[in-house]
Amino acid sequence: MSEELLHQDNLDKMKIERLKREEVVKGSILTYCHDTVRIPNGNIRVWDYIYHQGAAAVLPVDEDGRIILVRQYRNAFDRFMLEIPAGGLEGPDEPTREAAIRELEEETGYTAEDVSFLMAFYPTVAYSGEKIDIYLAKGLKKKERHLDADEFINVEAWDVDELMEMIFSGKLNDGKTVAAISAYTYLTNKVNE
Amino acid sequence: MSEELLHQDNLDKMKIERLKREEVVKGSILTYCHDTVRIPNGNIRVWDYIYHQGAAAVLPVDEDGRIILVRQYRNAFDRFMLEIPAGGLEGPDEPTREAAIRELEEETGYTAEDVSFLMAFYPTVAYSGEKIDIYLAKGLKKKERHLDADEFINVEAWDVDELMEMIFSGKLNDGKTVAAISAYTYLTNKVNE
Repeated sequence: MSEELLHQDNLDKMKIERLKREEVVKGSILTYCHDTVRIPNGNIRVWDYIYHQGAAAVLPVDEDGRIILVRQYRNAFDRFMLEIPAGGLEGPDEPTREAAIRELEEETGYTAEDVSFLMAFYPTVAYSGEKIDIYLAKGLKKKERHLDADEFINVEAWDVDELMEMIFSGKLNDGKTVAAISAYTYLTNKVNE
Repeated sequence: MSEELLHQDNLDKMKIERLKREEVVKGSILTYCHDTVRIPNGNIRVWDYIYHQGAAAVLPVDEDGRIILVRQYRNAFDRFMLEIPAGGLEGPDEPTREAAIRELEEETGYTAEDVSFLMAFYPTVAYSGEKIDIYLAKGLKKKERHLDADEFINVEAWDVDELMEMIFSGKLNDGKTVAAISAYTYLTNKVNE
């Protein structure tokens, strides 16, 4: 049940009209654009827009209920970060489920007997249309992993409650990882109710 | 308790060395850069890097335990989205707690007697150093709101379990919102145990 507390205007009048999208520079995984938009008060603005073709991630849970995470060095933060396995789609039309299964095996060496959709995660709605589909992987089987030539990754197994403590103590920060682990605890609590 | 399952190499050898950061274009809220990096196998790569000065968000919970959310049109997705109140810092040194309190009042018209740090959320660690500090706001008091001239926002109150259903059914996708609500349910479940 939801309640509308403050209805500023009818929603149609609150729409933003995009007049132009100009591709400024194509990067290795991003395309940076300038969007010229008309905002509801009639003013014209030029906003950043980042095109990203999408990604897939996977929350692997082993038979002991531990989460399998990867630790890798992130250039954007100049340090190692603990994350769920994830990677960009090989093309905008690649099924995200296939990409999630591929990244799980490439980064961790695990295959999964049971892969189910967990949720869609949009990391930065303010300036990018990027979507990350996150899957839940169970029935893990250890195999050989096949890292991309540019990937250097350690694999670790963590207890869920310890990871939640790390989230609240600021030791675990990656957005997709925080969201996936937190949402998973909601599902498991429901089951245990 | 954690266990290292696959130790590829010693961590130091897995570091990425940044040789150069070139500012390509400054946008309205982003700066798009090209980073020249040496990856652990010695290869040189040019990667995207997005500079963002940071943001703050707030999860407002009313006396009935409902979450106060804002609905606004997002140019990146060409549709309305339901999100927790949030906004960019007015400068890289603005305390995120002050920014969170400001955005709560500006976007919803609520002040909060009790504002506590919930967690740090890094939306896109693969290519941006953006950080969003998320706060929990309780003891809400209704006041007049003062929207930025460019903001057009509705305010809604939602039950937590309904929001979690929307996350798993793909109706609620904003990353910071998914992470904040999911993590909050973990805290409340802990209290109720």
